Amino acid sequence: MRVAIAGATGYTGLELMRILSAHPHITISALTSETYAGREFAHVYPGYLKRELPRLEPLVPEKIAAKADIVFTALPHKEAMRVVPALLKHGSRVIDLSADFRFKSQKTYERWYQEHSAPSLLGRAVYGLPELYRAAIKKAKLVANPGCYPTSIVLPLAPLLRKNMITLSSIIADSKSGVSGAGRSAKTASLFCEVSETFKAYGVFEHRHQPEIEEQLSALSGSQVKIAFSPHLLPMSRGMLSTIYARLKTNARPQDIQDVLDNFFKKEPFVRIHPQGSLPHTAGVRGTNFCDIGFRLQDKQLVLISCIDNLVKGASGQAVQNMNIMLGMPETTALDMAPLYP
Amino acid sequence: MRVAIAGATGYTGLELMRILSAHPHITISALTSETYAGREFAHVYPGYLKRELPRLEPLVPEKIAAKADIVFTALPHKEAMRVVPALLKHGSRVIDLSADFRFKSQKTYERWYQEHSAPSLLGRAVYGLPELYRAAIKKAKLVANPGCYPTSIVLPLAPLLRKNMITLSSIIADSKSGVSGAGRSAKTASLFCEVSETFKAYGVFEHRHQPEIEEQLSALSGSQVKIAFSPHLLPMSRGMLSTIYARLKTNARPQDIQDVLDNFFKKEPFVRIHPQGSLPHTAGVRGTNFCDIGFRLQDKQLVLISCIDNLVKGASGQAVQNMNIMLGMPETTALDMAPLYP
Amino acid sequence: MRVAIAGATGYTGLELMRILSAHPHITISALTSETYAGREFAHVYPGYLKRELPRLEPLVPEKIAAKADIVFTALPHKEAMRVVPALLKHGSRVIDLSADFRFKSQKTYERWYQEHSAPSLLGRAVYGLPELYRAAIKKAKLVANPGCYPTSIVLPLAPLLRKNMITLSSIIADSKSGVSGAGRSAKTASLFCEVSETFKAYGVFEHRHQPEIEEQLSALSGSQVKIAFSPHLLPMSRGMLSTIYARLKTNARPQDIQDVLDNFFKKEPFVRIHPQGSLPHTAGVRGTNFCDIGFRLQDKQLVLISCIDNLVKGASGQAVQNMNIMLGMPETTALDMAPLYP
Amino acid sequence: MRVAIAGATGYTGLELMRILSAHPHITISALTSETYAGREFAHVYPGYLKRELPRLEPLVPEKIAAKADIVFTALPHKEAMRVVPALLKHGSRVIDLSADFRFKSQKTYERWYQEHSAPSLLGRAVYGLPELYRAAIKKAKLVANPGCYPTSIVLPLAPLLRKNMITLSSIIADSKSGVSGAGRSAKTASLFCEVSETFKAYGVFEHRHQPEIEEQLSALSGSQVKIAFSPHLLPMSRGMLSTIYARLKTNARPQDIQDVLDNFFKKEPFVRIHPQGSLPHTAGVRGTNFCDIGFRLQDKQLVLISCIDNLVKGASGQAVQNMNIMLGMPETTALDMAPLYP
Repeated sequence: MRVAIAGATGYTGLELMRILSAHPHITISALTSETYAGREFAHVYPGYLKRELPRLEPLVPEKIAAKADIVFTALPHKEAMRVVPALLKHGSRVIDLSADFRFKSQKTYERWYQEHSAPSLLGRAVYGLPELYRAAIKKAKLVANPGCYPTSIVLPLAPLLRKNMITLSSIIADSKSGVSGAGRSAKTASLFCEVSETFKAYGVFEHRHQPEIEEQLSALSGSQVKIAFSPHLLPMSRGMLSTIYARLKTNARPQDIQDVLDNFFKKEPFVRIHPQGSLPHTAGVRGTNFCDIGFRLQDKQLVLISCIDNLVKGASGQAVQNMNIMLGMPETTALDMAPLYP
Repeated sequence: MRVAIAGATGYTGLELMRILSAHPHITISALTSETYAGREFAHVYPGYLKRELPRLEPLVPEKIAAKADIVFTALPHKEAMRVVPALLKHGSRVIDLSADFRFKSQKTYERWYQEHSAPSLLGRAVYGLPELYRAAIKKAKLVANPGCYPTSIVLPLAPLLRKNMITLSSIIADSKSGVSGAGRSAKTASLFCEVSETFKAYGVFEHRHQPEIEEQLSALSGSQVKIAFSPHLLPMSRGMLSTIYARLKTNARPQDIQDVLDNFFKKEPFVRIHPQGSLPHTAGVRGTNFCDIGFRLQDKQLVLISCIDNLVKGASGQAVQNMNIMLGMPETTALDMAPLYP
Repeated sequence: MRVAIAGATGYTGLELMRILSAHPHITISALTSETYAGREFAHVYPGYLKRELPRLEPLVPEKIAAKADIVFTALPHKEAMRVVPALLKHGSRVIDLSADFRFKSQKTYERWYQEHSAPSLLGRAVYGLPELYRAAIKKAKLVANPGCYPTSIVLPLAPLLRKNMITLSSIIADSKSGVSGAGRSAKTASLFCEVSETFKAYGVFEHRHQPEIEEQLSALSGSQVKIAFSPHLLPMSRGMLSTIYARLKTNARPQDIQDVLDNFFKKEPFVRIHPQGSLPHTAGVRGTNFCDIGFRLQDKQLVLISCIDNLVKGASGQAVQNMNIMLGMPETTALDMAPLYP
Repeated sequence: MRVAIAGATGYTGLELMRILSAHPHITISALTSETYAGREFAHVYPGYLKRELPRLEPLVPEKIAAKADIVFTALPHKEAMRVVPALLKHGSRVIDLSADFRFKSQKTYERWYQEHSAPSLLGRAVYGLPELYRAAIKKAKLVANPGCYPTSIVLPLAPLLRKNMITLSSIIADSKSGVSGAGRSAKTASLFCEVSETFKAYGVFEHRHQPEIEEQLSALSGSQVKIAFSPHLLPMSRGMLSTIYARLKTNARPQDIQDVLDNFFKKEPFVRIHPQGSLPHTAGVRGTNFCDIGFRLQDKQLVLISCIDNLVKGASGQAVQNMNIMLGMPETTALDMAPLYP
């Protein structure tokens, strides 16, 4: 299978490259970059010296579609919806890492982002969270790869919402992300001196991932869910931890919660439930596609803690997982790495 | 005034030294360390070369009390309650940075720590949070310097609890601390490789600062308060941020909250309320004695965000603030530094 | 005395603010910023909330000169030489933190930077390294504050060059700097993700500080000195360490070297020579104006190790030291802080 | 093939586990740890949940040898020489990651380390630097895996020493290492607060890797080589960069140096020579087995810059490379990963 990465030099593009470099059943057939068109990938990232890779080229949808069966669009939102229709039209299947096709509701998208230029695709796009939508992903032409925060929040809540165990109005998600989530663009706020040795909240109640999370939680619970969502920025590159507070509807023992989580995910290759007494840390998933989940319970107050690598399960790894599903390959192909630790 | 630091080579002892070095009205008359007794302080911390300081000596309470009007005990809990009675008996006033004298309730202390060997002092010790107990601190012989988490959580909640604005059962404190809070002892969990580029929760619902917070919040509100408290460890040395969730009893506008906070702290030199739309980061208080507070409100869901330097307002800076009050000096003496940033 | 900071929101401007905030004998009378003109300083840096400071304004030399006896120009090179002549003409004394007035040789400046628009000032400017040029600084109208690398390399070599102990062709300076030296401008290379957990050399044999170092070493030795200079970028914000290799002309004992260093700097408040067996680390000078120096000797091969905080002794602290000298105040005023550690 | 890791829970043991987890042709048949004997590996490192691994057991050489064709001994020096003879005697081939078998000269070993308890093996052990000793490694029963500093210094110098291009007395190696090189033992000096945001030299002229480097450089050049070696500690976990200064015997053009390096390493899968004008950074090799090399030349002064991941090419990756050679497998098996960046 021939695979292209559109937007290959951003951090999610680079991470796709890292993962796909180890994939035995695909060929990287095209790499696009507007900034570096004409250069070798190793010119931008010397860590890729000695690897044979196609030269970087500008993104011309027809040309890329002609070269690739699957295209990963690792582009900013708005940019993605401009090129995805043409890629589909010319026959590629697309896994889009932007926010442009994640919403079922055009209205919600337009309230939080901007006018949508390809709204007819919203209904056809499949939300690429394999643990919830595997069957649809398999057949999809267009997969909307989930946001990092939504992945880390929706996965641990899913089993409990499906079982109707949670008071919906009680959900609070206090999330913390490494700074690679802000991408590679040169912003003062992402400078080493502005991020190192400091910590802050940002976008409390205003982050664009909030409606995405709420749309998914609502689908899971069958009711309209509103949450309180507070993202924070960690002084580290990779890794995301969400501390999720929710009240149980009725009393339960810790073992009940453990069972619900274990059962829901028991066949999932990339979700690991920690045993009671153990809580995950982000280093345990660094560079991997795992979502690690632990919990604590005090009376009816449940605290769920989930860890992902925001660039892997939160972006490029999940995208490759989706590709494996779409191509009928074993889902863990190229994704079975152990964490880089320390 | 002659001042001694018992436990001078731990991080809170060192931080007392940093701050007191700039204090114009005191003399550092004794420094104790069991490990380094007999050595120069600059042997342990070469950053203090060229400063004239007393040599490190073992902690013999009578000897230290004879040399010092005020003794800071920067010792592990249990160790503190062993020496504080003797220091007091020999005439020193004591500011204790351990947990040993922070509780009014001996029972609570003993449930979370261990048997108390000097319970009669619990009633006489004053909880050293100047914004709440300034008058009592002024006259105290023994000040129990607050824990870092309690300082960061009690201060922002105090105005709202005093006004009875909060549903008491709704309080959740999601706190994040730099690793210097774990002290300078050689533990695997505090190694650079175990802390850098990772993030985790620890001690959820089990942290020893929880009863201390609850005792203070209960005193403020006049009722028994139970909170959900989740501490986390940040990959950085200094700084603490608490994200505190609480539900208002009745609807309020953001400006109402702003007014309550502004009014409560308007004469306080070390508490700064951010204007609406602005949230604090820990770098803004690095190396300073400030507690910076911001908030967001969505319907009745309030989010308070507070930042302190855990070693300053969370420990040694607050201790010096208490000393200034006890000695009748201007409260900001030696504490008026600007943040070290970047 | 009234003091202005031109370029107050860059990192050296901010650091001037931090230091001058504690200065008892000056008033900050003007702050300039083109980007933030009209805003409060605390709007850009909330760590300065609750301090009374002049509002940020655009840099109009006549207006600034009218408000300030001393102006610190914390501007990019080229920008500095554009405004300094006017500031001087309108009566301010100037301490310039750029490279524009550091060279005696216009030719050298123009080879490494660009055409000089105020070459007549090169002869009048005094190189602001107090340990070498204190008397001239006292009377100077224009002080050219040294570069950070030159400060860290010239100071440890000075005593040995003055004594003619070193084979001049043997000098190698392997220097390592924190990333704050790159300033606050939004560059991809300074992003957290590009700097954290990595290390690199840059500008080997091509760095613009090389001719500045060579001009100073030549002046000290009385001969033309050429060095090999390799700067490196550290994954940290502040701190600079230079490892300097030089061959002695004749055999010497370690104690001989110790004596030469001790004697040369014995009255200097900001240079500390480590005792034999001890080598400095940058944390020992963090936030301070010290230059700490240690050494090792193996046969004739000498290794000198010097540490400074690149933003303090390497920039703004040295600038304030120069100001104190120019104003006849005690040289350590506002500069006697202990290191922030950890 | 059955493979055992003795000392599986230290950082080099853990890194062996990470790499071997992806190896298609071996089975991990035993893991030893004295501290955690009886526990699951995932109990110590939850990042290994969901992997089937043998339980940790104490190191009994006969038992381990019975279970494994190859044993990696990732033990402290002194400990290694105690168990390696027994492992060999019971039929395992051994790749030892300690210093115990790296020296041909017992005298040198004993001067820098301690008495050797198995000196007869020194002559039989092969120094495991494949780029120099591949043929001997293939047949070896005991491979002494090189130190991290030696790997980073010997590789770039080898081509030039073989060609006799360097003035031997001129070699200076200024090396910088991430802190994982200090291992996982709980030492104050390795605490996050002691390492983060600081930089220092240590062991200048006294580091135990110096005689190892000198023995290898002497073998390459055919003369006794003495170098000046200054190791430094970086505020990061992984990565090592050596800046190596050497004087050419005769004038040369940069292209000449480039050709010598390119030719020497052209068939080597794990050494990458940067093109002129480009210098490596450690992030380009993070998590990989590459040694990246760049250089600058000014007159006869050559500066070589090499980067490795100290835990991979500097330890466990090189050990697996040696294993692949010993077992006749493709040398890059399980080692062809792309760098984790950012």
